[in-house]
Amino acid sequence: MKHMIFGESHGPAIGVTLSGVPAGIPLDLAEIAFEMGRRAPGKSQLSTARREADEPQIISGFFEGKTTGTPLCALIQNTDQHSGDYSQLKRMPRPGHGDYLGYLRYDGCNDYRGGGHFSGRLTAPLVFAGAVAKQILAREGISVGAHIRAVAGVEETSFLDVPLNPGLLREIAEKPFPVCDDGRGASMQQAILDAKADCDSVGGIIECAVLGLPAGVGSPDYGENVEGLLAQQLFAVPAVKGVEFGRGFAMAGLRGSQCNDPIQVRNGEITLTRNASGGVNGGITNGMPVVFSVVMRPTPSIAREQDTVDLETGENVKLTIQGRHDPCIVHRAVPVIEAAAALAICELLGI
Amino acid sequence: MKHMIFGESHGPAIGVTLSGVPAGIPLDLAEIAFEMGRRAPGKSQLSTARREADEPQIISGFFEGKTTGTPLCALIQNTDQHSGDYSQLKRMPRPGHGDYLGYLRYDGCNDYRGGGHFSGRLTAPLVFAGAVAKQILAREGISVGAHIRAVAGVEETSFLDVPLNPGLLREIAEKPFPVCDDGRGASMQQAILDAKADCDSVGGIIECAVLGLPAGVGSPDYGENVEGLLAQQLFAVPAVKGVEFGRGFAMAGLRGSQCNDPIQVRNGEITLTRNASGGVNGGITNGMPVVFSVVMRPTPSIAREQDTVDLETGENVKLTIQGRHDPCIVHRAVPVIEAAAALAICELLGI
Amino acid sequence: MKHMIFGESHGPAIGVTLSGVPAGIPLDLAEIAFEMGRRAPGKSQLSTARREADEPQIISGFFEGKTTGTPLCALIQNTDQHSGDYSQLKRMPRPGHGDYLGYLRYDGCNDYRGGGHFSGRLTAPLVFAGAVAKQILAREGISVGAHIRAVAGVEETSFLDVPLNPGLLREIAEKPFPVCDDGRGASMQQAILDAKADCDSVGGIIECAVLGLPAGVGSPDYGENVEGLLAQQLFAVPAVKGVEFGRGFAMAGLRGSQCNDPIQVRNGEITLTRNASGGVNGGITNGMPVVFSVVMRPTPSIAREQDTVDLETGENVKLTIQGRHDPCIVHRAVPVIEAAAALAICELLGI
Amino acid sequence: MKHMIFGESHGPAIGVTLSGVPAGIPLDLAEIAFEMGRRAPGKSQLSTARREADEPQIISGFFEGKTTGTPLCALIQNTDQHSGDYSQLKRMPRPGHGDYLGYLRYDGCNDYRGGGHFSGRLTAPLVFAGAVAKQILAREGISVGAHIRAVAGVEETSFLDVPLNPGLLREIAEKPFPVCDDGRGASMQQAILDAKADCDSVGGIIECAVLGLPAGVGSPDYGENVEGLLAQQLFAVPAVKGVEFGRGFAMAGLRGSQCNDPIQVRNGEITLTRNASGGVNGGITNGMPVVFSVVMRPTPSIAREQDTVDLETGENVKLTIQGRHDPCIVHRAVPVIEAAAALAICELLGI
Repeated sequence: MKHMIFGESHGPAIGVTLSGVPAGIPLDLAEIAFEMGRRAPGKSQLSTARREADEPQIISGFFEGKTTGTPLCALIQNTDQHSGDYSQLKRMPRPGHGDYLGYLRYDGCNDYRGGGHFSGRLTAPLVFAGAVAKQILAREGISVGAHIRAVAGVEETSFLDVPLNPGLLREIAEKPFPVCDDGRGASMQQAILDAKADCDSVGGIIECAVLGLPAGVGSPDYGENVEGLLAQQLFAVPAVKGVEFGRGFAMAGLRGSQCNDPIQVRNGEITLTRNASGGVNGGITNGMPVVFSVVMRPTPSIAREQDTVDLETGENVKLTIQGRHDPCIVHRAVPVIEAAAALAICELLGI
Repeated sequence: MKHMIFGESHGPAIGVTLSGVPAGIPLDLAEIAFEMGRRAPGKSQLSTARREADEPQIISGFFEGKTTGTPLCALIQNTDQHSGDYSQLKRMPRPGHGDYLGYLRYDGCNDYRGGGHFSGRLTAPLVFAGAVAKQILAREGISVGAHIRAVAGVEETSFLDVPLNPGLLREIAEKPFPVCDDGRGASMQQAILDAKADCDSVGGIIECAVLGLPAGVGSPDYGENVEGLLAQQLFAVPAVKGVEFGRGFAMAGLRGSQCNDPIQVRNGEITLTRNASGGVNGGITNGMPVVFSVVMRPTPSIAREQDTVDLETGENVKLTIQGRHDPCIVHRAVPVIEAAAALAICELLGI
Repeated sequence: MKHMIFGESHGPAIGVTLSGVPAGIPLDLAEIAFEMGRRAPGKSQLSTARREADEPQIISGFFEGKTTGTPLCALIQNTDQHSGDYSQLKRMPRPGHGDYLGYLRYDGCNDYRGGGHFSGRLTAPLVFAGAVAKQILAREGISVGAHIRAVAGVEETSFLDVPLNPGLLREIAEKPFPVCDDGRGASMQQAILDAKADCDSVGGIIECAVLGLPAGVGSPDYGENVEGLLAQQLFAVPAVKGVEFGRGFAMAGLRGSQCNDPIQVRNGEITLTRNASGGVNGGITNGMPVVFSVVMRPTPSIAREQDTVDLETGENVKLTIQGRHDPCIVHRAVPVIEAAAALAICELLGI
Repeated sequence: MKHMIFGESHGPAIGVTLSGVPAGIPLDLAEIAFEMGRRAPGKSQLSTARREADEPQIISGFFEGKTTGTPLCALIQNTDQHSGDYSQLKRMPRPGHGDYLGYLRYDGCNDYRGGGHFSGRLTAPLVFAGAVAKQILAREGISVGAHIRAVAGVEETSFLDVPLNPGLLREIAEKPFPVCDDGRGASMQQAILDAKADCDSVGGIIECAVLGLPAGVGSPDYGENVEGLLAQQLFAVPAVKGVEFGRGFAMAGLRGSQCNDPIQVRNGEITLTRNASGGVNGGITNGMPVVFSVVMRPTPSIAREQDTVDLETGENVKLTIQGRHDPCIVHRAVPVIEAAAALAICELLGI
């Protein structure tokens, strides 16, 4: 299964084509809408006030309620665009944003309106593709779910330290602010509102688990290992600046005896009695839940004045970004990370 | 440029084939030997006492002192094998090692002697390939160098906080324990010896910089972004459990105003005045040094007794690993990480 | 540059996404329409009477008259569908058509209406993609053009035996029946009408030339050789059953002295004085025009009664196909072959 | 399964690495030697008098008599090199050979001795890889076998016109000159000797069948269709100038009613009653034997004087090639084509 995402924030539509989808999958459209809704903005003070319908229209690969096996293409119309004056954006790239990179990479020919192809809006078709992938994986008994492990320095318990099951993942997915511990979630939300009040933004960590994956999948080699395949998909999500498996970066302060997960027979089956490795050793699944985290950088669009350059005059200028922006995108990114993970798992399984 | 690594720890030889190498590169064999030597074991109490010659024999793609443009293959003979009794290893997988994974993934048909294809020894051909890649990149004015950012919880200054230049990278590369601050390095080494005395091992963080890369390389899209291409190569290095760019996971506690690197004109050129992003935004190089870190898990081979299973009897057993092992592989992994990075940068540049 | 084609004959739309398009290409939309028109049906008695507007709507990757460098997606609405009763088609696959294959491959879940994803209609987005590729190649001085070398056993002179130049290719492209020799073309057209009168169809050979390609491109190795890259694209065109380079299959009756193109200095430049090899040796361009041919099988939709199976009852039945069909698609396929070739050449050049 | 071939005719060794080989395959080394022997030269007047041992040494991926699942690498030492004076070859490229292309493509840095990486000798590791692939396919009930359909204009019956079974394919494979009809074979051999007497060489057509492949494999789309995958591998074999499926180029003179293979129930199973399509429609296997042909150009090394250029002086010169050469390589290429086909079928089946 391969996917190709297309579109720009202010073009007529954005979308995705998925090839290699197995034939005969009866897509649950309500479930797809549920996933799209988790990512959609405009639901609280924590997000931008923009409202996007985000209703994917499937234009191929789906017939009489089932996937056909030939490429599945979905379009999402762009509707809530403020077609105002973008000339400032063209001249004065926003620090931390794709604007300056689009200018560098595409010789100034990129569609700069609203971030163009760099816009976080492009994660909507990714969530669509991931929702399809999740339904395919569900038929194999595999579930993918994530929570917010940290926001603005406020942390909650890791998935490595709680018993995981598909029901728990679903329960978290249905929360407007997807955490295990709603108390910690409230502190995180307060930290977001504090940053917003400061005309600033915050980042965080999303931790994701894949349950039900068989042991012995992957390879130690380049292009075939579990971590590499997941990381390749995860780093394609805007704002992801790091990926770690199991205890990840904390392992720099741990000892081998704390990281070697003991192999033991329990109830007649060989299992590991700890999951410091996050379900993967030597690039291969070991039968434990695959658990990894990504760090999302703070949203670059902040209301306070910033230093940039006027590309036309070549002079240093002060920039104040107008408009509706997210002080934090971590909570909206949770289904996006799940989507990227689901696509990687399909790839890993040769689906 | 693509590479394919082959071999097992106790087979006749290991090696690598590199296809797509540009023609006419006059390989500096002494420089390749220098890189191989940085990785080689047996040089101090910090590493295993095993001695491996690690002399790559180039058998194709190199003619009259230059690359031919057709596939370059190098073999490294396996010489210092203790051809003892490996039957224990076959029956009792070492926790945290590839043994159990090889058993699961390859239906018990893997070559289990000395870790087989999972052995850290397989990083020797990777260093060879990376040494070739580095020489190709050097012709484009690009240099790649890394240091130990942390071992066993002992940290030193990040590359993000010091002025970087090729000379500094070379100076660090020539050190037996590659750090910026040798005082911090001494503390790290003491921590390694402490762990060794405890029959245990430690992990650490390697931070790597790529200098001289042009701005505007990469893409926000899957399979084309700088972070994804680097991560794919880096996660293929054994023991890597996390990859982060710029401030990486620390961004979960930072604000947008601390992460948006200001764009400014300095001496008539547009530049960024900070490098929190590690040289990449939107999947594209921004002209600053590309700086990323990987975490290496503690070496799984430890001398203390561990819990595992006897695969033949299906019973829980105590395992004590014999033989010569590294209490830490972080310092030996520094050239390996550089090699993986160099290969990824070649891929990124379409070399 | 990669492309992904999606859609079915009777869905809402068909289309293509092109990623990796260079930024800043000022697409000539009239020229794209010209290419689409060459493929469009409904223009003479030689083709189906169906009329398809085939107006591609670009929905991404094109901004202010130029390509943006991010994925370019074009949609073509399906309009002239006879939404009649397709139940016969579902039950009784047409011999030689994709119907039976869709049933086998996609577990009977394929969209069978009008051939679905197997429909020749899907070559319309391919022509769009090729038209973009041609405009990119034109900037490098490369032109791609084809003619009908044979139809129904009626042949005309090969491109290997006439002096080739871009003007000639353009002249042929502008003909409704693209041949060098219109007299031979008239005989071919008569043969098509004869077959039509017999309720039958005919096949033919399209020969294509690529001019202006630099010498020394490609490689002898798998996945990198000129012939393999072209063949991979050409065999993805429906009805192509063979691909040959230069004298191709005729070489089975020739001698080495007739096939070794002499290398000679002419006017101070090294060139070949013959082109039996079709511009490629050892998988690498030799500086002569790259000339190859494809054979197109006779159209499978014929009006005469055929033997097939009723998939529902499992009984042998007689099938008579109703509707509007092409007695020959060779002339309409000429721009399709050029499109596939242009995409392959972009791939070869690393565009 | 991917393979990477390396080496040059006059380097220390040539070889191949196969990754993705399933674990636990008990390789039959005698069968591998049989395949290598079919390709080996020096057996009759029809081939070069050179003798090459061609004994592959497996250096990884094979342990205790079975494949390990990790990369399988085999080396073949180069032994019978006449280390004479190759300076003529460097200066005066042989028409039709890789010499001139190597010079163009690799900036004159290619190893020109004996054709270097362009040498037909490089098909030895391909045959090795194919022999492994065949053994994997045999476990799935799939067999691959070819015959010489034509040499020097002398043809024999097509595989499309005889009942095919694995026994017949094996019987042909064991012949020194692999044809169905030994009488036709004798005429072909005479034609080869006639050309040799004329200091010339001849080409031919190899037709190959794949039996036992399940119906419904492949896809109409680029990069996934049966024809494209096979062609990509086949065109990587030196001297292949064309690939056709079923009736192939003859379809240009046939009608639809002759090419549409009727679908019928026979003995309770749906089958086709003819195989004009060569077992593939719409890029998907239809359950009939997959039958395709390749044309091999006449060997470029001929003893008669030829026109070429002295690259050093830039003057036209007469070249007379010395040494031991094949007047025809078609019969030696039969196992090579089977090898390429076996690798493509593994790819098609996702092995």
